Amino acid sequence: MPIVTVTAPEREDRYDIHIERGLLGRCAALLAPYAGRRAAVVADANTAPLYAKTLMHQLMQAGLSPTLVTLPAGETTKCPEQLMRLYDAFLDARLTRADLVVALGGGVVGDIAGYAACTYLRGVPFVQVPTTLLAQVDSSVGGKVAVNHPKGKNLLGAFYQPELVLIDSDTLLTLDARQFGAGLGEVVKYGCIADRELFETIEACGSREALAPKLDAVIARCCELKARYVREDPHDHGVRMQLNFGHTLAHALENAMGYGTLLHGEAVCIGMVAAARWGETLGVTPVGTMERIRSLLLSYALPVDMPDGLSPETLADTMALDKKAAGSVIRTVMLTEIGACRAVPLSQAQLRSLL
Amino acid sequence: MPIVTVTAPEREDRYDIHIERGLLGRCAALLAPYAGRRAAVVADANTAPLYAKTLMHQLMQAGLSPTLVTLPAGETTKCPEQLMRLYDAFLDARLTRADLVVALGGGVVGDIAGYAACTYLRGVPFVQVPTTLLAQVDSSVGGKVAVNHPKGKNLLGAFYQPELVLIDSDTLLTLDARQFGAGLGEVVKYGCIADRELFETIEACGSREALAPKLDAVIARCCELKARYVREDPHDHGVRMQLNFGHTLAHALENAMGYGTLLHGEAVCIGMVAAARWGETLGVTPVGTMERIRSLLLSYALPVDMPDGLSPETLADTMALDKKAAGSVIRTVMLTEIGACRAVPLSQAQLRSLL
Repeated sequence: MPIVTVTAPEREDRYDIHIERGLLGRCAALLAPYAGRRAAVVADANTAPLYAKTLMHQLMQAGLSPTLVTLPAGETTKCPEQLMRLYDAFLDARLTRADLVVALGGGVVGDIAGYAACTYLRGVPFVQVPTTLLAQVDSSVGGKVAVNHPKGKNLLGAFYQPELVLIDSDTLLTLDARQFGAGLGEVVKYGCIADRELFETIEACGSREALAPKLDAVIARCCELKARYVREDPHDHGVRMQLNFGHTLAHALENAMGYGTLLHGEAVCIGMVAAARWGETLGVTPVGTMERIRSLLLSYALPVDMPDGLSPETLADTMALDKKAAGSVIRTVMLTEIGACRAVPLSQAQLRSLL
Repeated sequence: MPIVTVTAPEREDRYDIHIERGLLGRCAALLAPYAGRRAAVVADANTAPLYAKTLMHQLMQAGLSPTLVTLPAGETTKCPEQLMRLYDAFLDARLTRADLVVALGGGVVGDIAGYAACTYLRGVPFVQVPTTLLAQVDSSVGGKVAVNHPKGKNLLGAFYQPELVLIDSDTLLTLDARQFGAGLGEVVKYGCIADRELFETIEACGSREALAPKLDAVIARCCELKARYVREDPHDHGVRMQLNFGHTLAHALENAMGYGTLLHGEAVCIGMVAAARWGETLGVTPVGTMERIRSLLLSYALPVDMPDGLSPETLADTMALDKKAAGSVIRTVMLTEIGACRAVPLSQAQLRSLL
């Protein structure tokens, strides 16, 4: 099975991402180093009924004492109130610094469970078991954990690396088509910013069905790319910001429309097309790039156009508060070709005119 | 003026602790590297009227745009609700990742402002201006930031290093005698665990008045010792736990009596005497050590005896949930002589019998 190793400075040692169909049902051996400890398994109302029993069984086989904590499903769960509920559950389970937090679910579960693991007792060991394509290729790698604030997505967060990531691509079989598509959006992003070959593989397949047999390799490739970014820039002060291709608009869209209306990966699809268009307008991106990305996304039934009824002013105001906004300038990632990119500083005025 | 340099791995570069009488009124030069940025100055109802105007003036002189956020005074401020208030204030001030959080106050302000700085937008630069002896010699060095949970002190926290620490020992002139004494408790602790010479200096002075002229040097020495521990063990997995001498009981006392009844440093005084007694009982600590520490503390008018009306059972139950509790064994720091110590694993049963 593919294993991707991530090096990050917060942990003295590196950690591995194991990618294998059916891994969930036979991961006890990988969890055996934690024998004798307690584990809080954090799942949501979707993942708990599907996978919690299997994972709890493997944890017990590995000699751990697991407790299940089930959160409501959906982006609104990533809030300070649910975070406090998690802390309470950890305390009720008498979790100490020697014990384990395991996130079983998509990005929402990984982000809030990881943030709780980072901040409970100043940090307890953390294992990620991502069950959505988006989480597998993106949020489970790199140590970004967070909850949302009423005024913005991921405004409260930290950097905290897992000790182990277990990816069972069979979990994608139960994922609904829209969620799967959202993950594909991020996969396409990796191709756009850093890997022309990956982009062209996806482009050549041309449909979700044709891509299916190649998924394990695609997931592993995305994890490798993400791990490379994390290694080079663990705290997101430099090259890692390339991963935000499409995110300047995506965050603003999600925020302005209310979290959960548009899935993150869907917002990124719309944001990538917009960023390619901006890049072409400014002469950074070769003409035709936007159309090529747009066609690829459409062939995978992914959204590419701005939703109706959003005013450019609202979006621009939201962007001004984005985490990436360094003072009055917003650094936006633009492609220099398919597979390469750079950050371009845009003034608020430039952004407003591009919008 | 004494400058103590701390090396910690969370920041690429090291940071300096500047110790100087009157520094608050002339720190603009040290803040000049942040010119052009916004700064949220977090103070409490005690420190804001005393020092905020001076500090805000220096920040403006250095070219920053400061906003003052005033929290209620006291340990109860270190709670999730006030933390949310801080985030809101940062958002209202449109603080971005390039801006600055400045903590102006004692340990409570430093801990909650530092935790907010660590988690807001996944981390903004942080400057500590500690105004109590306890904060100057202990909590402002080492990157531990936290808020309390109804079920325990510092249960929610992280490791986050400041970029700069400014210590103006003139602020101790306005500190009430009880707060000053609490700080002295921690100073004595450094002597006990790591510096016989420091212990004997304090012992020879024999009163707060006699110690006063030596305070700047004593503060600098404590910062050096703390910085050494932090360098050797940034995440508190090893030797740094020696700093918890007296804390096994102290945390339980504070928790069982309700935060704020006993000051942290006062609880540590009682805890050090108890830990010395336990050490003598177990043959780890030379007989007579407890009495020597007890006499020193009494000469400085510091508490040494367990408060009435606390049941050993309640204390033992509270200790079982302490962060430092690794499973069922509680590692407790004991002196092997004045100026040296080691951690001794105690079972719950042993602790109950010692209590």
